[in-house]
Amino acid sequence: MSYHKDLRDYLDHLDRAGKLRRVGRRIDKDTELHPLVRWQFRGLDEDERTGFLFDNLTGLKGLNYPSRVATAIMAPSREVYAMGMMCSPAEISQKWSAAYARPIEPRLVTTGPVKEEIHLGKNLLEHGGLDEFAIPMATNGWECLPRLTAVSWHSKDPDTGVVNVGTYNGLQLGPDRTNLRCGPGTHLVVHWQKCRKRGVPLQAAAVIGAVPAISMVSVAKVPYSVSELAVAGGIAGEPIDVVRCETIDLVVPATAEIVIEGEVPTDYMEPDGASGEHTGYTIVGRRVFAFKVKAITHRKNPIWHDFISQMPPSESSTIRGLAGEGRMTSFLRDGCGINQVKDVAFHHCAGAWRICVIRFQDIAGVRTHESVVWQALLASQSIATDWPKMVIAVDDDIDPTDLESVFWAVTFRYQPHRDTRIIQGRGASLDQSSGSYSASYEERRFPTGTTSPQGASSILMDATRKWDYTPVSLPKKEYMENAKRIWEELGFPRLKPKAPWYGYDLGIWAEEDERLARLAEKGEFDKVAEALMSKGRKLTPTDKVSGGME
Amino acid sequence: MSYHKDLRDYLDHLDRAGKLRRVGRRIDKDTELHPLVRWQFRGLDEDERTGFLFDNLTGLKGLNYPSRVATAIMAPSREVYAMGMMCSPAEISQKWSAAYARPIEPRLVTTGPVKEEIHLGKNLLEHGGLDEFAIPMATNGWECLPRLTAVSWHSKDPDTGVVNVGTYNGLQLGPDRTNLRCGPGTHLVVHWQKCRKRGVPLQAAAVIGAVPAISMVSVAKVPYSVSELAVAGGIAGEPIDVVRCETIDLVVPATAEIVIEGEVPTDYMEPDGASGEHTGYTIVGRRVFAFKVKAITHRKNPIWHDFISQMPPSESSTIRGLAGEGRMTSFLRDGCGINQVKDVAFHHCAGAWRICVIRFQDIAGVRTHESVVWQALLASQSIATDWPKMVIAVDDDIDPTDLESVFWAVTFRYQPHRDTRIIQGRGASLDQSSGSYSASYEERRFPTGTTSPQGASSILMDATRKWDYTPVSLPKKEYMENAKRIWEELGFPRLKPKAPWYGYDLGIWAEEDERLARLAEKGEFDKVAEALMSKGRKLTPTDKVSGGME
Repeated sequence: MSYHKDLRDYLDHLDRAGKLRRVGRRIDKDTELHPLVRWQFRGLDEDERTGFLFDNLTGLKGLNYPSRVATAIMAPSREVYAMGMMCSPAEISQKWSAAYARPIEPRLVTTGPVKEEIHLGKNLLEHGGLDEFAIPMATNGWECLPRLTAVSWHSKDPDTGVVNVGTYNGLQLGPDRTNLRCGPGTHLVVHWQKCRKRGVPLQAAAVIGAVPAISMVSVAKVPYSVSELAVAGGIAGEPIDVVRCETIDLVVPATAEIVIEGEVPTDYMEPDGASGEHTGYTIVGRRVFAFKVKAITHRKNPIWHDFISQMPPSESSTIRGLAGEGRMTSFLRDGCGINQVKDVAFHHCAGAWRICVIRFQDIAGVRTHESVVWQALLASQSIATDWPKMVIAVDDDIDPTDLESVFWAVTFRYQPHRDTRIIQGRGASLDQSSGSYSASYEERRFPTGTTSPQGASSILMDATRKWDYTPVSLPKKEYMENAKRIWEELGFPRLKPKAPWYGYDLGIWAEEDERLARLAEKGEFDKVAEALMSKGRKLTPTDKVSGGME
Repeated sequence: MSYHKDLRDYLDHLDRAGKLRRVGRRIDKDTELHPLVRWQFRGLDEDERTGFLFDNLTGLKGLNYPSRVATAIMAPSREVYAMGMMCSPAEISQKWSAAYARPIEPRLVTTGPVKEEIHLGKNLLEHGGLDEFAIPMATNGWECLPRLTAVSWHSKDPDTGVVNVGTYNGLQLGPDRTNLRCGPGTHLVVHWQKCRKRGVPLQAAAVIGAVPAISMVSVAKVPYSVSELAVAGGIAGEPIDVVRCETIDLVVPATAEIVIEGEVPTDYMEPDGASGEHTGYTIVGRRVFAFKVKAITHRKNPIWHDFISQMPPSESSTIRGLAGEGRMTSFLRDGCGINQVKDVAFHHCAGAWRICVIRFQDIAGVRTHESVVWQALLASQSIATDWPKMVIAVDDDIDPTDLESVFWAVTFRYQPHRDTRIIQGRGASLDQSSGSYSASYEERRFPTGTTSPQGASSILMDATRKWDYTPVSLPKKEYMENAKRIWEELGFPRLKPKAPWYGYDLGIWAEEDERLARLAEKGEFDKVAEALMSKGRKLTPTDKVSGGME
């Protein structure tokens, strides 16, 4: 089966699966669009969340936009994200590992749909430039300009030619002008630094609405020497078709909706507007790069692709979280060789990357040694300076994506003084707990005061069982299955079973316990009572008794 | 408005509110009843959970029971629990504080519905003794006898006469015989120890199906010198009517469905059967008290009252959790005088008591000092030996009942090395993480090896903001309210808004930020762009640049 041929093919797929809400009603892109879609993240369960496609848009400038807007289409839920990968939700992590292991280089083609309309040179603004597109406002009431969100920025290393694709956002400053926010350490910044040294601007292309695999790799932490375009090919299972840009020396996906070509000056920076971030806070007072548009190419009736980011959970926390899980699982299993790691879950509430649950599995029936659990907990700190911040190790029977399941394990399988390590000397980008906002950006990014209130750290918690336990206190599987049939016969509401939903043995369950349970199943309560009471015992005056349950 | 007059009045109330599922289909109390109701705790959201009333019961012995069974009726959800208190969910905590502050002593009456049928002496077993009631099996497939669950055991201090009411469970060993599980430190055990010293058995009455306030106080950690009957009166807002027992020197609620009078030998103990516990594990290998029935009195067509306990979330984790929240809030605010404590939430996944979130509020606009936060975190360890085990302090804008909200705060308002204290020397009843099951009961209850893997501890985390933050990255309230109207007009699924659902100021928001946001609201994007770009700046070769977002 070939991969989604373009964004429109993918949207049709979502529509057929009931995972796209089409809004034909007139909507103001600047005041109504984001708040409307935001509600599904603050008011619906994940399985009710869908993508949105807006067909009829206006804005504060009073324009009627010819372009549509698709938002929350990549990752309103794990289920929809899996549709973009053409796999099941359970296969996402494996699909990522395979894409890292077997990347497929892109294929250069002569032209593609993205060239249906070309605006450049003195005709750049013939259709309004960027104003041709309905670019929505986000974090309404705080932000001050329309915001570019689901943009995959393409740029390349001037020394090696390796292309980076990264999702960075920015504000629309005019018909041919945006800014560009990319944090320290991101790969576009490396390219920018190299160009700055050469005294030339950085060429860059902002790609909007390529196939889903491009959006997925674009938010992932792909190692510097690996091209995201090849990892996207690995996800798609086929090469991504690319075409040459018109005015700069870059290739871009041939079926994208829109490509904005231009340059990032390397001798200039400017103040940013307020920006809602995935941490749940609206950052102010930054300076950022500028971006000057040289050409715009796009499909007819273009679809502007937008992300719902900011306060988690959001589309951003899902798409970034799942990419992070793929990267972390691949690193721990393939990079560090810890094949006892079954999978990894990142949590929305932590803005995707900062709470990480690592689930362990027995290999060939051999229980994972505690030292291996700690190898993985410590290794989790190895792929970034500032995440994950809280890492929790759990056993195979825990659902790492479910906070209730994880904290059930923390409550009864973890002892704080024995099973905790706190690691200092960590970075803290965008995390205001590391230091007051009055400190310099550099000081907040890596707080050096390790004994003062300033400073950043992470906490590692081993919530795996250290020895055998008694069985889980739920009815055995056959009882729960039978009761489910009765439940359905009675017409009660649809069940969404949570793990665990039946009881199982965890190593401590004696033959006599089993014998009594089997007698009970036959209704032979008299024999059970007899067995227990026959071992009753008179207390002597010196017997110590702490309670009627000991 | 007077309080619920009896259990049946309360059940009618639930039925009218759509919070009771009546099951007329024939159900086996020993194999089907608990697994069926268990599904609502493993497969439905809390707002879909209800009480259950079974009218048509059989069991493994093939009997047709004249008695009905009501289960999960007290606390399938916070909402239903509030109905038992006759208040709103938000008023539960306050209602508890008031009941502790203003208890109302019970009123002795000459007779009541519970005396409609009386079986004692040589007629004790005329209707089958305990076999007259449909006592369900729990944790099916593991446990070995029918289990008494929602029983409020009444007993009194032989020195002071103060009555204790406590919920302890046990197994039905025959028509006139049960066992009785009450852990070390429980008040019934104190009575038992005093009677043991005098060489007499302990008189006790097992009360089933009294008014909801009795079930509520019965699971609460009411201080020893205070009678639960008086606290129940405080909740009801009127005295609880009580009648004298037939064969022992105790009073019991007059409108209860069933009262079982008897004695607990103080010179005898016996082995327990396997027992599913609220921790999520099925405990084995204990010894327990015995209970010998002397009389049974009950209403006609009695309703056997049952709890769904074991693996959390369950009815038990809700009813115990809410009582614990009431006790902790009252202790911190009234006992310790920390009026900055707004409320406290205990979490299901921790079996009710072990994860505790304390929410702080500013008093008269003065921010709570960090030392007060720590006073409360440490004080939380003062009312029990073994709970809470994980305590998290949060600000007023966090929903303490929502794990996602709490861990959003932990992620971005907490630094592990600065904001964590680990407290050793704690107890650990029923918590298998403190030591292997091969250790003695006493060693597991209070593990003394503080440097070895054995031992028990708790972790305190301050996840309050230490300084001003930038605004929450959600649209302002008016945008979200307007979008909610559009959402409803479009016929999208019903919203259950989660806090926070709009953005608010947290102290850092400059006049210039506000000016640009107001310009944007008027669509004056050109003026905004001009304001930002006019402050753009050429970089000199020595300017240090860490990224395009700094």
